[in-house]
Amino acid sequence: MIKNRLKLGCALLVLLAGPAAAETPKRDELKAAVAASHDKTVKALQDWIKLPTIAAEGLNVDKGADYMRQLALDAGFQKAKVVASGGVPGVFATLDAGAPVTLGVYFMYDVKQFDPAEWTSPPLEAKLVDRPGEGLVMMGRGVVNQKGPEMAFLAALKAFKATGRKLPVNLVLVAEGEEEIASPNFPTVVADPEVTAALKKTAGVFIPTASQTNAGTAGITLGAKGSVEFQLIVGGETSDKYPKADIHSSNHARIESPAWRLVKALDTLVADDGHTPAIDGWFENVKPLTARQKELITIGVKSRAEADVKKELGIGRWIDNEDFQTSSERFLSQPTVNIQGLVSGYTGPGGKTVLPGRAEAKLEFRLVPDMTRAEAETKLKAHLAKRGFDDVKVNVSGGYGPNQTDENTAFIQAQKRTLDKAGIPYTLTPRNAGSWPGVVFNGKPLNLPAGQFGVGRGGGAHAPDEWFLIKSSNPKVAGLDDATMLYVDLLYEIAATGGKK
Amino acid sequence: MIKNRLKLGCALLVLLAGPAAAETPKRDELKAAVAASHDKTVKALQDWIKLPTIAAEGLNVDKGADYMRQLALDAGFQKAKVVASGGVPGVFATLDAGAPVTLGVYFMYDVKQFDPAEWTSPPLEAKLVDRPGEGLVMMGRGVVNQKGPEMAFLAALKAFKATGRKLPVNLVLVAEGEEEIASPNFPTVVADPEVTAALKKTAGVFIPTASQTNAGTAGITLGAKGSVEFQLIVGGETSDKYPKADIHSSNHARIESPAWRLVKALDTLVADDGHTPAIDGWFENVKPLTARQKELITIGVKSRAEADVKKELGIGRWIDNEDFQTSSERFLSQPTVNIQGLVSGYTGPGGKTVLPGRAEAKLEFRLVPDMTRAEAETKLKAHLAKRGFDDVKVNVSGGYGPNQTDENTAFIQAQKRTLDKAGIPYTLTPRNAGSWPGVVFNGKPLNLPAGQFGVGRGGGAHAPDEWFLIKSSNPKVAGLDDATMLYVDLLYEIAATGGKK
Repeated sequence: MIKNRLKLGCALLVLLAGPAAAETPKRDELKAAVAASHDKTVKALQDWIKLPTIAAEGLNVDKGADYMRQLALDAGFQKAKVVASGGVPGVFATLDAGAPVTLGVYFMYDVKQFDPAEWTSPPLEAKLVDRPGEGLVMMGRGVVNQKGPEMAFLAALKAFKATGRKLPVNLVLVAEGEEEIASPNFPTVVADPEVTAALKKTAGVFIPTASQTNAGTAGITLGAKGSVEFQLIVGGETSDKYPKADIHSSNHARIESPAWRLVKALDTLVADDGHTPAIDGWFENVKPLTARQKELITIGVKSRAEADVKKELGIGRWIDNEDFQTSSERFLSQPTVNIQGLVSGYTGPGGKTVLPGRAEAKLEFRLVPDMTRAEAETKLKAHLAKRGFDDVKVNVSGGYGPNQTDENTAFIQAQKRTLDKAGIPYTLTPRNAGSWPGVVFNGKPLNLPAGQFGVGRGGGAHAPDEWFLIKSSNPKVAGLDDATMLYVDLLYEIAATGGKK
Repeated sequence: MIKNRLKLGCALLVLLAGPAAAETPKRDELKAAVAASHDKTVKALQDWIKLPTIAAEGLNVDKGADYMRQLALDAGFQKAKVVASGGVPGVFATLDAGAPVTLGVYFMYDVKQFDPAEWTSPPLEAKLVDRPGEGLVMMGRGVVNQKGPEMAFLAALKAFKATGRKLPVNLVLVAEGEEEIASPNFPTVVADPEVTAALKKTAGVFIPTASQTNAGTAGITLGAKGSVEFQLIVGGETSDKYPKADIHSSNHARIESPAWRLVKALDTLVADDGHTPAIDGWFENVKPLTARQKELITIGVKSRAEADVKKELGIGRWIDNEDFQTSSERFLSQPTVNIQGLVSGYTGPGGKTVLPGRAEAKLEFRLVPDMTRAEAETKLKAHLAKRGFDDVKVNVSGGYGPNQTDENTAFIQAQKRTLDKAGIPYTLTPRNAGSWPGVVFNGKPLNLPAGQFGVGRGGGAHAPDEWFLIKSSNPKVAGLDDATMLYVDLLYEIAATGGKK
């Protein structure tokens, strides 16, 4: 789900010519270790990509979890175990450095589905290819979302190991294998008493990410929308009004159609404008943007050419033909009810005279503060029940609420300082319009700062030809080793100040 | 499209113990010729099935037409030619026997799509398999819809050839290869001046069919609903409001969704009950059933167990929980707007967080007298335009209006007499709820009687394991050779009385 974070580029552009990470002691020694391990790290990333875990397909579920556990142990975590979740298992690992401060890290070890036919390089071969204007990149499913950045973080830990140095902070790692299906069981993993107890001691939790634009600007994101994935299903399986299988279409003259029933149910969920959610009470807990959030959006809007953004998205107009500022505020502030997919009856070329036996809409909510997942699910079901849609099955397959972290927390301040000291410009985005399950850390009962952090660069998440920069040809953009070193720097910054929440 | 003709079984059951086809001279001689050619006919049918023409897939288009032309010549037509149609070509053939009466025959040489994985016997191998309680059947795509019955008719003509006998009637054959996509170009074939001129001389036009139930009851059907197939398409190709391809779903907060737009357009086409067409002016030309039509329906309703029909269709209830009579009247009298299929965005297992770049509904109208195809298309477009859906593309891919022939025409009387004399009980169905393009003959300018005729038995049209009875184990049901002989008898009946329109 973590994608398009920086599509808007809402930004507080900070340009500092400060010394590179002055506070990381003997930085060169660690840097040399990172460089010496470069080929090994690349190979380790390639091996990981060759084992895709895909929750939607039940692919490499147990193998993927065990592999994740082993990666943690190899990087220096003293304890690592697979945690049953009821679905794809989680992984919990700890590294005790005897430090006063503990940092939480969140990993996803699953990847999005893919169709090899759409790729120019086989998605599981993780080949190194030249990308003009960028450098040498690895191409493979999951390489930027999220295995590449995660491997960079693990490489940072290995550099400590290689130089016989203790980490400046203790670490708690929690990983899941269902991020791409909206983390249906991740709350269970985190609710494990041992995991909860460990996380409680952390200064905050972050997921490694490759946030740099091609101009070298990194990003700090202060929150994310929540996401709930669900399906509406109508057919012979939900009522004996409908046929159990597709039958000859002439029968619609005397038999109800699940496809029409689905259309009628769907129609009630958004207003006639085709985008405003119309579920009863949907906006009750929607918080308006703060003045500061709007200010950050304005800075972001000014930093990007609207035409480029539209071109990248393949559109000519925003909703209601709004201007870039209005549309950008809408992007970050509005909850959505989106149709991911529609499937019913005959879906091949041309037509086929059937009355479908089943109709399914794959839907998704994006939630903004202070909406919650439970609220969304309850309101949807009440809305449909009130209108008599008792033959429409609601299957909530995953989801979580939004998260939001204050930019003044020590945790975010440490991230800012890390970038400042490295001389890397960055944007401050008030909220990710996409989603990640940070609410598991950010919400009750943990109430921890949570975010995404990292430099380096990649693209094509959820799409063909996903890529991650290994050796950058642009001095402003970090390759794998520089991205690794920034995590080293972050650990020292967190150690210095991150203890305060 | 020709399917489910007898699902309702509206019936005037006629049981006569008259002599078998007394008026066919030297019937035994022809019967012996049919029997002697049995193996050849079976082989010819198998060979035809091995060459499936599928218009929706552009499969074996020219080959199929040429094959059809050759089949006609082999059966004794003196002239046969392929007629360009703008789509899959038609075939026009004539057999001049110097007779005073001319009979029109309509063939379809195309078949429905198929998925071999769903079949127990390979759909193109046309194997002979035992079907318990029925006899030896051929299993293959198109074998009952419509190649088997058509081959039986051709075998009847070959029996005349084999015995050196002249046909008692002249024949005009018009065949098409787009029946399964609602005959978009068949009117063009029939409008060819040479074809029109030839058809004008006919007493009526029929398509061979295998109409017997497992109790041996045959059927005469007096009409059929019309059918118009069309697609509604919304997406990057119809407006720059929508993305050109699937993009990350977070963007729905600022970009319109083609899927929602399609839902909103669809929602206006049927009432909230999920089945009553709501297109402006839709019922203006819908004729109510006549007293005689209702009477025929009542007879049909009484002749079948409602529970069996429901079981066969896989449902527990008719629309609005109506009784069998009411539901059967609805079945034959009501026009429909049916969704054949819905396709948008992600259609695989689970979910995928995309905002679709395209949404398509595959739809179909069934039209009753006196609606016309042109009326349906015009009213649909006006309805959508009035509501501002100018970004919803309407693609009409095929269709034609309804047909209805009076049971008192000489043409239908000849059919009745043929069955009466053969001692075969039959039902008289006022209208087929399914469709065939009989309106091309039945409507202006030809105004010919049109119908389906034939005995024999089969099933699985448009479905896996389509079958056609070759050797019947039930003396009441005709196998291939008896079905062939009934066409011989029909030709003599038409010769005797069919000249009067």
